[in-house]
Amino acid sequence: MSKSFRTSHLVEFRETDAAGIAHFSNFFAWMEAAEHELLRSVGLSVVTTDATGTITWPRVAARCDYQGPVRFEETVDIEVRVPRTGLKSVTYDFQFSGPRGAVATGEITAVCCRIAADGSFRSILIPDDMRRGIETYASQ
Amino acid sequence: MSKSFRTSHLVEFRETDAAGIAHFSNFFAWMEAAEHELLRSVGLSVVTTDATGTITWPRVAARCDYQGPVRFEETVDIEVRVPRTGLKSVTYDFQFSGPRGAVATGEITAVCCRIAADGSFRSILIPDDMRRGIETYASQ
Amino acid sequence: MSKSFRTSHLVEFRETDAAGIAHFSNFFAWMEAAEHELLRSVGLSVVTTDATGTITWPRVAARCDYQGPVRFEETVDIEVRVPRTGLKSVTYDFQFSGPRGAVATGEITAVCCRIAADGSFRSILIPDDMRRGIETYASQ
Amino acid sequence: MSKSFRTSHLVEFRETDAAGIAHFSNFFAWMEAAEHELLRSVGLSVVTTDATGTITWPRVAARCDYQGPVRFEETVDIEVRVPRTGLKSVTYDFQFSGPRGAVATGEITAVCCRIAADGSFRSILIPDDMRRGIETYASQ
Repeated sequence: MSKSFRTSHLVEFRETDAAGIAHFSNFFAWMEAAEHELLRSVGLSVVTTDATGTITWPRVAARCDYQGPVRFEETVDIEVRVPRTGLKSVTYDFQFSGPRGAVATGEITAVCCRIAADGSFRSILIPDDMRRGIETYASQ
Repeated sequence: MSKSFRTSHLVEFRETDAAGIAHFSNFFAWMEAAEHELLRSVGLSVVTTDATGTITWPRVAARCDYQGPVRFEETVDIEVRVPRTGLKSVTYDFQFSGPRGAVATGEITAVCCRIAADGSFRSILIPDDMRRGIETYASQ
Repeated sequence: MSKSFRTSHLVEFRETDAAGIAHFSNFFAWMEAAEHELLRSVGLSVVTTDATGTITWPRVAARCDYQGPVRFEETVDIEVRVPRTGLKSVTYDFQFSGPRGAVATGEITAVCCRIAADGSFRSILIPDDMRRGIETYASQ
Repeated sequence: MSKSFRTSHLVEFRETDAAGIAHFSNFFAWMEAAEHELLRSVGLSVVTTDATGTITWPRVAARCDYQGPVRFEETVDIEVRVPRTGLKSVTYDFQFSGPRGAVATGEITAVCCRIAADGSFRSILIPDDMRRGIETYASQ
Protein backbone atom coordinates (compact mmCIF):
# COMPACT_ATOMS: atom_id res chain seq x y z
CA MET A 1 0.00 0.00 0.00
CA SER A 2 1.69 3.16 -1.18
CA LYS A 3 0.88 6.84 -0.92
CA SER A 4 2.67 9.42 -3.03
CA PHE A 5 3.07 13.16 -2.66
CA ARG A 6 2.16 15.20 -5.74
CA THR A 7 3.09 18.72 -6.70
CA SER A 8 3.84 20.61 -9.92
CA HIS A 9 6.13 23.28 -11.31
CA LEU A 10 5.64 25.73 -14.17
CA VAL A 11 8.90 26.09 -16.13
CA GLU A 12 10.26 29.63 -15.66
CA PHE A 13 12.00 31.53 -18.47
CA ARG A 14 15.25 31.76 -16.50
CA GLU A 15 15.22 27.93 -16.27
CA THR A 16 15.44 27.57 -20.06
CA ASP A 17 18.73 27.54 -21.97
CA ALA A 18 19.90 28.42 -25.47
CA ALA A 19 18.76 24.98 -26.70
CA GLY A 20 15.20 26.18 -25.92
CA ILE A 21 14.52 23.70 -23.10
CA ALA A 22 14.67 23.60 -19.30
CA HIS A 23 18.32 23.17 -18.31
CA PHE A 24 18.97 19.70 -16.81
CA SER A 25 20.30 21.15 -13.54
CA ASN A 26 16.88 22.57 -12.65
CA PHE A 27 15.51 19.09 -12.00
CA PHE A 28 17.69 18.89 -8.88
CA ALA A 29 16.25 22.19 -7.65
CA TRP A 30 12.74 20.93 -8.40
CA MET A 31 13.43 17.66 -6.54
CA GLU A 32 14.59 19.50 -3.45
CA ALA A 33 11.65 21.92 -3.55
CA ALA A 34 9.25 18.95 -3.81
CA GLU A 35 11.00 17.17 -0.92
CA HIS A 36 10.63 20.26 1.27
CA GLU A 37 6.99 20.62 0.29
CA LEU A 38 6.44 16.94 1.18
CA LEU A 39 8.02 17.58 4.59
CA ARG A 40 5.79 20.62 5.17
CA SER A 41 2.75 18.51 4.23
CA VAL A 42 3.40 16.41 7.34
CA GLY A 43 4.34 19.35 9.58
CA LEU A 44 8.12 19.04 9.21
CA SER A 45 10.91 21.21 7.82
CA VAL A 46 14.27 20.28 6.33
CA VAL A 47 15.83 22.64 8.90
CA THR A 48 14.69 22.28 12.53
CA THR A 49 16.00 24.08 15.57
CA ASP A 50 15.59 22.42 18.96
CA ALA A 51 17.13 23.02 22.39
CA THR A 52 20.35 21.24 21.37
CA GLY A 53 20.89 23.08 18.06
CA THR A 54 19.99 22.62 14.40
CA ILE A 55 19.01 19.43 12.59
CA THR A 56 19.24 19.38 8.80
CA TRP A 57 19.48 16.89 5.93
CA PRO A 58 22.55 17.20 3.68
CA ARG A 59 22.39 15.14 0.51
CA VAL A 60 24.73 12.16 0.05
CA ALA A 61 23.50 11.21 -3.41
CA ALA A 62 21.41 12.70 -6.18
CA ARG A 63 20.69 11.46 -9.67
CA CYS A 64 18.33 12.13 -12.56
CA ASP A 65 17.58 10.27 -15.79
CA TYR A 66 16.04 12.32 -18.57
CA GLN A 67 13.46 11.01 -21.06
CA GLY A 68 12.43 14.20 -22.85
CA PRO A 69 12.60 17.99 -22.71
CA VAL A 70 10.22 20.51 -21.18
CA ARG A 71 9.92 24.09 -22.31
CA PHE A 72 9.01 27.55 -21.01
CA GLU A 73 5.56 27.80 -19.40
CA GLU A 74 4.97 24.05 -19.57
CA THR A 75 3.75 22.41 -16.37
CA VAL A 76 5.85 19.61 -14.90
CA ASP A 77 3.93 17.24 -12.64
CA ILE A 78 6.07 15.74 -9.88
CA GLU A 79 5.23 12.59 -7.92
CA VAL A 80 7.36 11.78 -4.88
CA ARG A 81 7.69 8.49 -3.00
CA VAL A 82 9.94 7.29 -0.20
CA PRO A 83 11.33 3.88 -1.21
CA ARG A 84 13.84 3.59 1.68
CA THR A 85 14.21 4.96 5.18
CA GLY A 86 17.34 3.85 7.02
CA LEU A 87 18.28 4.56 10.63
CA LYS A 88 19.91 7.85 9.61
CA SER A 89 18.97 8.44 5.95
CA VAL A 90 15.96 8.76 3.66
CA THR A 91 15.72 8.18 -0.09
CA TYR A 92 13.14 10.06 -2.14
CA ASP A 93 12.09 9.01 -5.66
CA PHE A 94 10.69 11.51 -8.15
CA GLN A 95 8.67 10.96 -11.35
CA PHE A 96 8.46 14.00 -13.61
CA SER A 97 5.88 14.22 -16.39
CA GLY A 98 5.00 17.02 -18.79
CA PRO A 99 2.47 17.74 -21.52
CA ARG A 100 4.03 15.10 -23.84
CA GLY A 101 4.41 12.36 -21.20
CA ALA A 102 7.32 11.14 -19.06
CA VAL A 103 10.12 13.69 -18.68
CA ALA A 104 12.50 12.35 -16.05
CA THR A 105 12.98 10.17 -12.99
CA GLY A 106 15.19 11.21 -10.11
CA GLU A 107 16.37 10.17 -6.67
CA ILE A 108 17.83 11.99 -3.69
CA THR A 109 19.29 10.43 -0.53
CA ALA A 110 19.57 12.74 2.48
CA VAL A 111 21.17 12.04 5.86
CA CYS A 112 19.80 13.37 9.14
CA CYS A 113 22.54 15.52 10.70
CA ARG A 114 23.09 17.83 13.59
CA ILE A 115 25.13 20.97 12.85
CA ALA A 116 27.82 21.32 15.56
CA ALA A 117 28.83 24.70 17.04
CA ASP A 118 31.84 24.80 14.66
CA GLY A 119 29.58 24.36 11.62
CA SER A 120 30.49 20.71 11.00
CA PHE A 121 27.85 18.01 10.38
CA ARG A 122 27.36 14.84 12.45
CA SER A 123 24.87 12.19 11.35
CA ILE A 124 22.23 11.20 13.93
CA LEU A 125 19.39 8.71 14.22
CA ILE A 126 16.27 10.12 12.59
CA PRO A 127 14.03 11.46 15.41
CA ASP A 128 10.84 9.40 15.76
CA ASP A 129 8.41 12.18 14.87
CA MET A 130 10.34 12.95 11.68
CA ARG A 131 10.44 9.26 10.72
CA ARG A 132 6.69 8.89 11.23
CA GLY A 133 5.99 11.97 9.09
CA ILE A 134 8.26 10.96 6.23
CA GLU A 135 7.02 7.34 6.20
CA THR A 136 3.57 8.67 5.31
CA TYR A 137 4.92 8.46 1.78
CA ALA A 138 6.83 5.17 2.14
CA SER A 139 6.40 3.28 -1.11
CA GLN A 140 6.43 -0.19 0.46
CA MET B 1 46.99 4.73 -20.40
CA SER B 2 44.67 7.49 -19.26
CA LYS B 3 44.74 11.24 -19.52
CA SER B 4 42.46 13.42 -17.44
CA PHE B 5 41.32 17.01 -17.79
CA ARG B 6 41.80 19.18 -14.71
CA THR B 7 40.19 22.46 -13.75
CA SER B 8 39.07 24.15 -10.53
CA HIS B 9 36.30 26.32 -9.14
CA LEU B 10 36.29 28.82 -6.28
CA VAL B 11 33.02 28.52 -4.32
CA GLU B 12 30.98 31.72 -4.78
CA PHE B 13 28.90 33.23 -1.98
CA ARG B 14 25.67 32.80 -3.94
CA GLU B 15 26.45 29.06 -4.19
CA THR B 16 26.32 28.66 -0.39
CA ASP B 17 23.11 27.98 1.52
CA ALA B 18 21.78 28.60 5.02
CA ALA B 19 23.59 25.45 6.24
CA GLY B 20 26.82 27.33 5.46
CA ILE B 21 27.99 25.04 2.65
CA ALA B 22 27.86 24.93 -1.14
CA HIS B 23 24.37 23.77 -2.14
CA PHE B 24 24.42 20.26 -3.64
CA SER B 25 22.84 21.41 -6.92
CA ASN B 26 25.91 23.47 -7.80
CA PHE B 27 27.95 20.34 -8.46
CA PHE B 28 25.85 19.72 -11.58
CA ALA B 29 26.60 23.25 -12.81
CA TRP B 30 30.29 22.71 -12.06
CA MET B 31 30.27 19.35 -13.92
CA GLU B 32 28.76 20.92 -17.01
CA ALA B 33 31.16 23.89 -16.90
CA ALA B 34 34.11 21.46 -16.64
CA GLU B 35 32.75 19.36 -19.54
CA HIS B 36 32.49 22.46 -21.74
CA GLU B 37 35.99 23.55 -20.74
CA LEU B 38 37.26 20.05 -21.63
CA LEU B 39 35.58 20.36 -25.05
CA ARG B 40 37.15 23.77 -25.62
CA SER B 41 40.57 22.33 -24.68
CA VAL B 42 40.33 20.14 -27.80
CA GLY B 43 38.83 22.83 -30.04
CA LEU B 44 35.19 21.75 -29.66
CA SER B 45 32.01 23.33 -28.28
CA VAL B 46 28.89 21.76 -26.78
CA VAL B 47 26.92 23.76 -29.37
CA THR B 48 28.11 23.62 -32.99
CA THR B 49 26.44 25.12 -36.02
CA ASP B 50 27.19 23.58 -39.43
CA ALA B 51 25.55 23.86 -42.86
CA THR B 52 22.77 21.48 -41.82
CA GLY B 53 21.87 23.17 -38.53
CA THR B 54 22.84 22.91 -34.87
CA ILE B 55 24.45 19.97 -33.05
CA THR B 56 24.21 19.89 -29.26
CA TRP B 57 24.49 17.39 -26.40
CA PRO B 58 21.43 17.08 -24.15
CA ARG B 59 21.98 15.10 -20.97
CA VAL B 60 20.28 11.72 -20.51
CA ALA B 61 21.68 11.03 -17.05
CA ALA B 62 23.44 12.91 -14.28
CA ARG B 63 24.40 11.82 -10.79
CA CYS B 64 26.56 12.96 -7.92
CA ASP B 65 27.67 11.28 -4.67
CA TYR B 66 28.78 13.59 -1.89
CA GLN B 67 31.57 12.83 0.61
CA GLY B 68 31.94 16.16 2.38
CA PRO B 69 31.02 19.84 2.25
CA VAL B 70 32.85 22.78 0.71
CA ARG B 71 32.42 26.35 1.85
CA PHE B 72 32.62 29.93 0.57
CA GLU B 73 35.96 30.86 -1.05
CA GLU B 74 37.29 27.29 -0.87
CA THR B 75 38.80 25.94 -4.09
CA VAL B 76 37.30 22.78 -5.56
CA ASP B 77 39.66 20.84 -7.82
CA ILE B 78 37.87 18.95 -10.57
CA GLU B 79 39.32 16.03 -12.53
CA VAL B 80 37.40 14.80 -15.58
CA ARG B 81 37.72 11.52 -17.44
CA VAL B 82 35.74 9.89 -20.25
CA PRO B 83 35.07 6.27 -19.24
CA ARG B 84 32.67 5.49 -22.14
CA THR B 85 32.04 6.76 -25.65
CA GLY B 86 29.21 5.04 -27.49
CA LEU B 87 28.12 5.56 -31.08
CA LYS B 88 25.87 8.45 -30.06
CA SER B 89 26.68 9.21 -26.42
CA VAL B 90 29.56 10.13 -24.13
CA THR B 91 29.91 9.61 -20.37
CA TYR B 92 32.05 11.97 -18.32
CA ASP B 93 33.33 11.15 -14.81
CA PHE B 94 34.18 13.88 -12.30
CA GLN B 95 36.28 13.73 -9.12
CA PHE B 96 35.86 16.75 -6.84
CA SER B 97 38.35 17.48 -4.06
CA GLY B 98 38.66 20.40 -1.66
CA PRO B 99 40.99 21.63 1.07
CA ARG B 100 39.99 18.72 3.37
CA GLY B 101 40.17 15.96 0.74
CA ALA B 102 37.55 14.18 -1.39
CA VAL B 103 34.31 16.12 -1.78
CA ALA B 104 32.22 14.33 -4.42
CA THR B 105 32.21 12.08 -7.47
CA GLY B 106 29.83 12.69 -10.36
CA GLU B 107 28.87 11.44 -13.79
CA ILE B 108 27.07 12.93 -16.78
CA THR B 109 25.97 11.11 -19.92
CA ALA B 110 25.23 13.30 -22.94
CA VAL B 111 23.79 12.31 -26.32
CA CYS B 112 24.87 13.89 -29.59
CA CYS B 113 21.76 15.45 -31.17
CA ARG B 114 20.75 17.60 -34.06
CA ILE B 115 18.13 20.27 -33.31
CA ALA B 116 15.43 20.09 -35.99
CA ALA B 117 13.77 23.19 -37.47
CA ASP B 118 10.80 22.68 -35.11
CA GLY B 119 13.11 22.70 -32.07
CA SER B 120 12.95 18.95 -31.45
CA PHE B 121 16.07 16.83 -30.83
CA ARG B 122 17.17 13.83 -32.92
CA SER B 123 20.15 11.72 -31.81
CA ILE B 124 22.93 11.27 -34.39
CA LEU B 125 26.22 9.39 -34.68
CA ILE B 126 29.00 11.39 -33.05
CA PRO B 127 30.91 13.14 -35.88
CA ASP B 128 34.47 11.77 -36.22
CA ASP B 129 36.29 15.00 -35.33
CA MET B 130 34.24 15.35 -32.15
CA ARG B 131 34.88 11.72 -31.18
CA ARG B 132 38.62 12.11 -31.68
CA GLY B 133 38.70 15.26 -29.56
CA ILE B 134 36.67 13.82 -26.70
CA GLU B 135 38.61 10.53 -26.66
CA THR B 136 41.74 12.52 -25.76
CA TYR B 137 40.44 12.04 -22.24
CA ALA B 138 39.23 8.42 -22.59
CA SER B 139 40.01 6.67 -19.33
CA GLN B 140 40.72 3.26 -20.91
CA MET C 1 -7.62 54.41 -10.59
CA SER C 2 -5.02 51.69 -10.20
CA LYS C 3 -5.15 47.93 -10.25
CA SER C 4 -2.23 45.83 -9.09
CA PHE C 5 -1.29 42.21 -9.73
CA ARG C 6 -0.53 40.16 -6.64
CA THR C 7 1.34 36.91 -6.23
CA SER C 8 3.62 35.34 -3.65
CA HIS C 9 6.74 33.20 -3.36
CA LEU C 10 7.88 30.81 -0.63
CA VAL C 11 11.64 31.16 -0.08
CA GLU C 12 13.37 27.94 -1.18
CA PHE C 13 16.38 26.52 0.66
CA ARG C 14 18.60 26.85 -2.41
CA GLU C 15 17.76 30.58 -2.47
CA THR C 16 19.35 31.11 0.96
CA ASP C 17 23.04 31.86 1.46
CA ALA C 18 25.62 31.36 4.21
CA ALA C 19 24.39 34.56 5.90
CA GLY C 20 21.13 32.67 6.50
CA ILE C 21 18.95 34.86 4.27
CA ALA C 22 17.60 34.83 0.70
CA HIS C 23 20.42 35.92 -1.60
CA PHE C 24 19.76 39.38 -3.10
CA SER C 25 19.98 38.10 -6.68
CA ASN C 26 16.82 36.02 -6.23
CA PHE C 27 14.66 39.13 -6.16
CA PHE C 28 15.40 39.62 -9.87
CA ALA C 29 14.26 36.08 -10.59
CA TRP C 30 11.12 36.66 -8.49
CA MET C 31 10.40 39.92 -10.33
CA GLU C 32 10.62 38.22 -13.69
CA ALA C 33 8.47 35.29 -12.57
CA ALA C 34 5.83 37.75 -11.28
CA GLU C 35 5.96 39.74 -14.55
CA HIS C 36 5.38 36.54 -16.55
CA GLU C 37 2.53 35.52 -14.26
CA LEU C 38 0.98 39.00 -14.73
CA LEU C 39 1.22 38.53 -18.51
CA ARG C 40 -0.43 35.11 -18.29
CA SER C 41 -3.22 36.63 -16.17
CA VAL C 42 -4.24 38.69 -19.23
CA GLY C 43 -3.68 35.91 -21.77
CA LEU C 44 -0.19 36.95 -22.86
CA SER C 45 3.29 35.41 -22.74
CA VAL C 46 6.73 36.99 -22.63
CA VAL C 47 7.56 34.89 -25.70
CA THR C 48 5.07 34.90 -28.57
CA THR C 49 5.44 33.25 -31.95
CA ASP C 50 3.44 34.67 -34.85
CA ALA C 51 3.63 34.24 -38.65
CA THR C 52 6.58 36.66 -38.87
CA GLY C 53 8.68 35.09 -36.09
CA THR C 54 9.20 35.51 -32.37
CA ILE C 55 8.39 38.52 -30.19
CA THR C 56 10.08 38.75 -26.79
CA TRP C 57 10.91 41.37 -24.15
CA PRO C 58 14.60 41.72 -23.25
CA ARG C 59 15.31 43.87 -20.20
CA VAL C 60 17.03 47.23 -20.55
CA ALA C 61 17.06 48.07 -16.86
CA ALA C 62 16.52 46.30 -13.55
CA ARG C 63 16.98 47.53 -10.00
CA CYS C 64 16.10 46.51 -6.47
CA ASP C 65 16.32 48.33 -3.12
CA TYR C 66 16.38 46.14 -0.04
CA GLN C 67 14.77 47.01 3.31
CA GLY C 68 15.12 43.76 5.21
CA PRO C 69 15.95 40.08 4.86
CA VAL C 70 13.70 37.09 4.26
CA ARG C 71 14.56 33.58 5.29
CA PHE C 72 13.90 29.94 4.32
CA GLU C 73 10.21 28.98 4.15
CA GLU C 74 9.03 32.55 4.69
CA THR C 75 6.38 33.79 2.26
CA VAL C 76 7.17 36.88 0.20
CA ASP C 77 4.09 38.76 -1.03
CA ILE C 78 4.67 40.53 -4.35
CA GLU C 79 2.55 43.39 -5.70
CA VAL C 80 3.16 44.47 -9.30
CA ARG C 81 2.09 47.70 -11.01
CA VAL C 82 2.84 49.19 -14.44
CA PRO C 83 3.84 52.84 -13.91
CA ARG C 84 4.91 53.46 -17.53
CA THR C 85 4.16 52.06 -20.95
CA GLY C 86 6.06 53.68 -23.80
CA LEU C 87 5.65 53.01 -27.51
CA LYS C 88 8.15 50.15 -27.33
CA SER C 89 8.82 49.55 -23.63
CA VAL C 90 7.06 48.73 -20.37
CA THR C 91 8.18 49.42 -16.80
CA TYR C 92 7.01 47.16 -13.98
CA ASP C 93 7.20 48.13 -10.29
CA PHE C 94 7.37 45.51 -7.55
CA GLN C 95 6.67 45.79 -3.81
CA PHE C 96 7.95 42.84 -1.76
CA SER C 97 6.73 42.25 1.80
CA GLY C 98 7.41 39.43 4.24
CA PRO C 99 6.33 38.33 7.70
CA ARG C 100 8.12 41.30 9.33
CA GLY C 101 6.90 43.95 6.86
CA ALA C 102 8.48 45.63 3.82
CA VAL C 103 11.34 43.65 2.28
CA ALA C 104 12.23 45.33 -1.02
CA THR C 105 11.05 47.44 -3.94
CA GLY C 106 12.14 46.73 -7.48
CA GLU C 107 11.67 47.84 -11.06
CA ILE C 108 12.19 46.22 -14.45
CA THR C 109 11.99 47.91 -17.85
CA ALA C 110 11.53 45.59 -20.82
CA VAL C 111 11.54 46.43 -24.53
CA CYS C 112 9.29 44.74 -27.07
CA CYS C 113 11.56 43.09 -29.65
CA ARG C 114 11.40 40.82 -32.61
CA ILE C 115 14.11 38.15 -32.84
CA ALA C 116 15.57 38.22 -36.37
CA ALA C 117 16.56 35.07 -38.26
CA ASP C 118 20.21 35.64 -37.26
CA GLY C 119 19.26 35.73 -33.57
CA SER C 120 19.62 39.52 -33.19
CA PHE C 121 16.94 41.68 -31.49
CA ARG C 122 15.12 44.61 -33.11
CA SER C 123 12.79 46.80 -31.02
CA ILE C 124 9.21 47.16 -32.33
CA LEU C 125 6.04 49.05 -31.41
CA ILE C 126 4.15 47.12 -28.76
CA PRO C 127 1.30 45.28 -30.56
CA ASP C 128 -2.12 46.66 -29.56
CA ASP C 129 -3.43 43.50 -27.92
CA MET C 130 -0.32 43.25 -25.76
CA ARG C 131 -0.56 46.93 -24.77
CA ARG C 132 -4.21 46.54 -23.78
CA GLY C 133 -3.44 43.49 -21.65
CA ILE C 134 -0.47 45.01 -19.85
CA GLU C 135 -2.27 48.33 -19.21
CA THR C 136 -4.79 46.40 -17.10
CA TYR C 137 -2.24 47.01 -14.37
CA ALA C 138 -1.29 50.60 -15.29
CA SER C 139 -0.77 52.49 -12.04
CA GLN C 140 -2.07 55.83 -13.39
CA MET D 1 43.56 59.55 -9.87
CA SER D 2 41.54 56.39 -10.23
CA LYS D 3 42.43 52.72 -10.17
CA SER D 4 39.99 50.08 -11.33
CA PHE D 5 39.79 46.34 -10.69
CA ARG D 6 39.46 44.18 -13.79
CA THR D 7 38.27 40.63 -14.19
CA SER D 8 36.35 38.63 -16.78
CA HIS D 9 33.72 35.91 -17.08
CA LEU D 10 33.09 33.35 -19.81
CA VAL D 11 29.32 32.95 -20.36
CA GLU D 12 28.27 29.45 -19.27
CA PHE D 13 25.61 27.45 -21.12
CA ARG D 14 23.36 27.32 -18.04
CA GLU D 15 23.44 31.14 -17.98
CA THR D 16 21.78 31.36 -21.41
CA ASP D 17 18.02 31.35 -21.91
CA ALA D 18 15.60 30.35 -24.65
CA ALA D 19 16.16 33.74 -26.34
CA GLY D 20 19.73 32.54 -26.94
CA ILE D 21 21.43 35.13 -24.71
CA ALA D 22 22.75 35.35 -21.15
CA HIS D 23 19.77 35.88 -18.84
CA PHE D 24 19.72 39.39 -17.33
CA SER D 25 19.76 38.08 -13.75
CA ASN D 26 23.28 36.67 -14.21
CA PHE D 27 24.77 40.16 -14.27
CA PHE D 28 23.95 40.48 -10.56
CA ALA D 29 25.78 37.23 -9.84
CA TRP D 30 28.74 38.44 -11.95
CA MET D 31 28.78 41.78 -10.10
CA GLU D 32 28.91 40.06 -6.74
CA ALA D 33 31.60 37.62 -7.87
CA ALA D 34 33.70 40.57 -9.15
CA GLU D 35 33.18 42.48 -5.87
CA HIS D 36 34.39 39.46 -3.88
CA GLU D 37 37.39 39.03 -6.19
CA LEU D 38 38.20 42.75 -5.71
CA LEU D 39 38.05 42.24 -1.93
CA ARG D 40 40.36 39.22 -2.14
CA SER D 41 42.81 41.27 -4.25
CA VAL D 42 43.38 43.48 -1.20
CA GLY D 43 43.39 40.64 1.33
CA LEU D 44 39.76 40.97 2.43
CA SER D 45 36.67 38.76 2.32
CA VAL D 46 32.97 39.63 2.19
CA VAL D 47 32.56 37.41 5.28
CA THR D 48 35.01 37.91 8.15
CA THR D 49 34.97 36.23 11.54
CA ASP D 50 36.65 38.01 14.45
CA ALA D 51 36.53 37.53 18.24
CA THR D 52 33.17 39.32 18.45
CA GLY D 53 31.43 37.37 15.69
CA THR D 54 30.83 37.68 11.94
CA ILE D 55 31.03 40.80 9.76
CA THR D 56 29.33 40.68 6.37
CA TRP D 57 28.00 43.06 3.70
CA PRO D 58 24.31 42.69 2.82
CA ARG D 59 23.21 44.65 -0.23
CA VAL D 60 20.82 47.60 0.13
CA ALA D 61 20.64 48.42 -3.57
CA ALA D 62 21.51 46.80 -6.88
CA ARG D 63 20.81 47.92 -10.43
CA CYS D 64 21.88 47.09 -13.96
CA ASP D 65 21.31 48.84 -17.31
CA TYR D 66 21.70 46.68 -20.39
CA GLN D 67 23.09 47.85 -23.73
CA GLY D 68 23.41 44.61 -25.65
CA PRO D 69 23.32 40.83 -25.29
CA VAL D 70 26.12 38.34 -24.71
CA ARG D 71 25.98 34.72 -25.73
CA PHE D 72 27.36 31.30 -24.76
CA GLU D 73 31.17 31.09 -24.60
CA GLU D 74 31.60 34.82 -25.13
CA THR D 75 33.95 36.58 -22.70
CA VAL D 76 32.56 39.44 -20.64
CA ASP D 77 35.20 41.89 -19.40
CA ILE D 78 34.27 43.50 -16.08
CA GLU D 79 35.78 46.73 -14.74
CA VAL D 80 34.98 47.67 -11.13
CA ARG D 81 35.38 51.05 -9.40
CA VAL D 82 34.34 52.35 -5.98
CA PRO D 83 32.64 55.73 -6.52
CA ARG D 84 31.46 56.13 -2.90
CA THR D 85 32.47 54.90 0.52
CA GLY D 86 30.31 56.12 3.39
CA LEU D 87 30.81 55.54 7.09
CA LYS D 88 28.94 52.25 6.92
CA SER D 89 28.41 51.52 3.21
CA VAL D 90 30.30 51.06 -0.05
CA THR D 91 29.08 51.51 -3.63
CA TYR D 92 30.67 49.53 -6.44
CA ASP D 93 30.29 50.45 -10.14
CA PHE D 94 30.65 47.86 -12.87
CA GLN D 95 31.27 48.26 -16.61
CA PHE D 96 30.61 45.13 -18.67
CA SER D 97 31.92 44.79 -22.22
CA GLY D 98 31.82 41.89 -24.65
CA PRO D 99 33.11 41.03 -28.12
CA ARG D 100 30.77 43.59 -29.75
CA GLY D 101 31.43 46.45 -27.28
CA ALA D 102 29.53 47.77 -24.24
CA VAL D 103 27.13 45.25 -22.71
CA ALA D 104 25.92 46.73 -19.41
CA THR D 105 26.66 49.01 -16.49
CA GLY D 106 25.73 48.10 -12.95
CA GLU D 107 25.96 49.26 -9.37
CA ILE D 108 25.77 47.58 -5.98
CA THR D 109 25.63 49.28 -2.57
CA ALA D 110 26.55 47.09 0.40
CA VAL D 111 26.36 47.91 4.10
CA CYS D 112 28.91 46.71 6.64
CA CYS D 113 27.01 44.64 9.23
CA ARG D 114 27.63 42.46 12.19
CA ILE D 115 25.49 39.29 12.41
CA ALA D 116 24.04 39.07 15.94
CA ALA D 117 23.70 35.79 17.83
CA ASP D 118 20.00 35.62 16.81
CA GLY D 119 20.94 35.89 13.12
CA SER D 120 19.83 39.53 12.74
CA PHE D 121 22.03 42.18 11.05
CA ARG D 122 23.22 45.44 12.68
CA SER D 123 25.08 48.03 10.59
CA ILE D 124 28.50 49.10 11.91
CA LEU D 125 31.22 51.58 10.99
CA ILE D 126 33.48 50.07 8.35
CA PRO D 127 36.64 48.84 10.15
CA ASP D 128 39.71 50.88 9.14
CA ASP D 129 41.63 48.04 7.51
CA MET D 130 38.62 47.16 5.33
CA ARG D 131 38.13 50.81 4.35
CA ARG D 132 41.77 51.17 3.36
CA GLY D 133 41.64 48.00 1.24
CA ILE D 134 38.42 48.92 -0.57
CA GLU D 135 39.53 52.53 -1.21
CA THR D 136 42.38 51.14 -3.31
CA TYR D 137 39.76 51.23 -6.06
CA ALA D 138 38.10 54.56 -5.11
CA SER D 139 37.22 56.31 -8.36
CA GLN D 140 37.77 59.83 -7.02
